[in-house]
Amino acid sequence: MAGASASARVESDPTRIMMAVNQSTIKGYPHASISSKGAFEWTLEKIIRTNTTGFKLLFLHVQVPDQDGFGVNARKRTGWLDTRGRVSGFDEVDSIYASPEDFKELKRRDRARGVHLLEYFVRRCHEIRVSCEAWIKIGDPNQVICHEVIRVRPDFLVVGCRGLGPFQKVFVGTVSEFCQKHVECPVIVIKRKPNEMPQDPVDD
Amino acid sequence: MAGASASARVESDPTRIMMAVNQSTIKGYPHASISSKGAFEWTLEKIIRTNTTGFKLLFLHVQVPDQDGFGVNARKRTGWLDTRGRVSGFDEVDSIYASPEDFKELKRRDRARGVHLLEYFVRRCHEIRVSCEAWIKIGDPNQVICHEVIRVRPDFLVVGCRGLGPFQKVFVGTVSEFCQKHVECPVIVIKRKPNEMPQDPVDD
Repeated sequence: MAGASASARVESDPTRIMMAVNQSTIKGYPHASISSKGAFEWTLEKIIRTNTTGFKLLFLHVQVPDQDGFGVNARKRTGWLDTRGRVSGFDEVDSIYASPEDFKELKRRDRARGVHLLEYFVRRCHEIRVSCEAWIKIGDPNQVICHEVIRVRPDFLVVGCRGLGPFQKVFVGTVSEFCQKHVECPVIVIKRKPNEMPQDPVDD
Repeated sequence: MAGASASARVESDPTRIMMAVNQSTIKGYPHASISSKGAFEWTLEKIIRTNTTGFKLLFLHVQVPDQDGFGVNARKRTGWLDTRGRVSGFDEVDSIYASPEDFKELKRRDRARGVHLLEYFVRRCHEIRVSCEAWIKIGDPNQVICHEVIRVRPDFLVVGCRGLGPFQKVFVGTVSEFCQKHVECPVIVIKRKPNEMPQDPVDD
């Protein structure tokens, strides 16, 4: 799970595909979003195909900090996961009664959830013997993806998108459009399949 | 050189990549533009790699009609090519003294030039044993590419672009941006390499 490095490359190196992946807005961590999974499966089926040694996948998961600088889940879930994985404690409250130590723990936990999300992709790659790396960054997804592309220098970037209409886009961020305009490498945007669209298309 | 058809597909079919290619603005027909050649070489190197049976390339060349409904070259070159390939006759004139029959001949010749352009890509594919098809359409490139994607249903579209800045874009069409927004399949835009940029970056 080490960060990818931009080392000097020779002709026979595998094609390095960066994939920006995020969690499901419906199921939350550790589930991957519908569009991330779709973009991943599309890449396997249409690009990598049987040439598993010709490619390396680089999975980047960006966690969005809330105003306090913690992962976005810290704001929503200030309770603890019990041994059965259920949230207990002071969930769904406006005021937060937690010590700085508690927040430190939450931050660590958010990171663990991110790792768990990446596990899905890494495990699948191991199964089909495609080389991969995966890592987490915290920040604004648009900015972080642009920065990581400059740092890691993939051959191209794959991002999933919900395929929203112009009206819906006003209310939600469209990382894919930002990437197409600003990222310093070729970008391919994979829309969700119509039959995978949830009831509310803004969900993912 | 037959047009590609949108037949029913099974799992093991090759990935069908459509490539929109055009002629060089500097050398004219039959030379391919720098960005078309770059996008083609990129696709071979980064996507197809050694998996030559896993992909099929579909080359579309769109010829832009001038106001008289002829290919864009009819307006600039109203003379004839002599046996050594040089233009002779009434070249570089404002008034055109040509009969309807002459224009018919020009139209035919423009088409032949388009075929000659496509030959470059088809021959290269044959050399490396990648399956391909190539065809010509006349019309507005943006509209034609969108229409052909709906008709042919490729898995994705590759287009080269000059990588112009926003100021330069005001004066020239940006087919790549239009495709990214409107084409009904994933699109990957390949920018020209900095070392391939001609003196005037608007040239290609």
